[in-house]
Amino acid sequence: MARDMTLLWGSGSPPCWRVQIALEEKNLQGYNQKLLSFEKMEHKSQEVLDINARGQLPSFKHGDVIVNESYAACFYLESQFKSEGNKLIPDSPAEQALVYQRMFEGVTFYEKLNAVIYYDWFVPEGERHDSALKRNREALATELKLWEGYLQKLSPGSHLAGQFFSLADVTVFPTVATLFRFGLSAEHYPNLGEYYALLKVRPSIKASWPPHWLENPKGQDTLKDI
Amino acid sequence: MARDMTLLWGSGSPPCWRVQIALEEKNLQGYNQKLLSFEKMEHKSQEVLDINARGQLPSFKHGDVIVNESYAACFYLESQFKSEGNKLIPDSPAEQALVYQRMFEGVTFYEKLNAVIYYDWFVPEGERHDSALKRNREALATELKLWEGYLQKLSPGSHLAGQFFSLADVTVFPTVATLFRFGLSAEHYPNLGEYYALLKVRPSIKASWPPHWLENPKGQDTLKDI
Repeated sequence: MARDMTLLWGSGSPPCWRVQIALEEKNLQGYNQKLLSFEKMEHKSQEVLDINARGQLPSFKHGDVIVNESYAACFYLESQFKSEGNKLIPDSPAEQALVYQRMFEGVTFYEKLNAVIYYDWFVPEGERHDSALKRNREALATELKLWEGYLQKLSPGSHLAGQFFSLADVTVFPTVATLFRFGLSAEHYPNLGEYYALLKVRPSIKASWPPHWLENPKGQDTLKDI
Repeated sequence: MARDMTLLWGSGSPPCWRVQIALEEKNLQGYNQKLLSFEKMEHKSQEVLDINARGQLPSFKHGDVIVNESYAACFYLESQFKSEGNKLIPDSPAEQALVYQRMFEGVTFYEKLNAVIYYDWFVPEGERHDSALKRNREALATELKLWEGYLQKLSPGSHLAGQFFSLADVTVFPTVATLFRFGLSAEHYPNLGEYYALLKVRPSIKASWPPHWLENPKGQDTLKDI
């Protein structure tokens, strides 16, 4: 199965990491993979464009089936390999609803993170405003408080949508890890800190930890005061 | 079933419209609903905040289960009412992959649309730049060409992920309708124009057409030259 799969990915990209975690959770180790460099613009190479007209990573192929969007690949893998590895979407209506709800709030969470840590990358020099960056930081702080509250309502040691690990964790954990990589304080956000500590030792996550984070364990301090 | 459901929504909001179409497709007419006014800031009312901490529409409740994110609600409805109404996620791996892929590309499509038509709303006056709006318009044009190409590859009269109507149409059609509401030219984008003409008469879509568009059929011409 896994031998029919190819993943083109970049280190430290949350969307790529989601697909890698999903593949690990579904016991699909052994897939073909190629680590490409964003710095060298390899995501715009012909190899990527052949699969992905957007020139983005992840690019993912299973046999003749192409599913590049990270959430799409996660849904696809869970649906096609339902009985392999860990079940990532629960059956109970209430549990399932919470998994979906947190997954899609996760899209907003990720955008608000990017609007702060990649502000200079997204906004050309002549268009930057301190007032905009300040507003983005405030929006991220508001978002962080929401997630801190979500975790507060669950019992200690819970995952994002309850006791079990789910697609909500697959899709949102890479955002949480990136927050801490960029200096988020576990003292300011103790529930997120606990969640991060719980999941970073999970086998699927350890196995897919961004290699350049391993090589250079010190991140940045962009978010330390948030 | 539908009597246990409540939808709080706003007219012309693509995320609200997605949920309304999904409810129609799953034959869940008769749900409780309340049309709220964004202009009057009713999405920040206590009634909404009680269900949705973000103060956003749609806000959706089924019994005690709350699923506010529009994509989450669509997945939830399809999963919980699989055998009711129309099947919105196909079983075949290739068809399913394409539905998921287009759904999540649809998130980008919607963002690129908003970055043009709501630029002044998102960006405070002192931070606006003609260069940014021009770039956003170019990004939208590039995105439109992608979708025009996707439709070109399918046979005439197809839906977004093939011959059948699916969650890809549920989630992306409201974006397409908004494009035409804001003046997109069907001459410039004939495949999107044909798709729009095909779907706007579909019963689920007619039944949920934004009431303020019906009252005032003339839209804007923001996108006429794109």
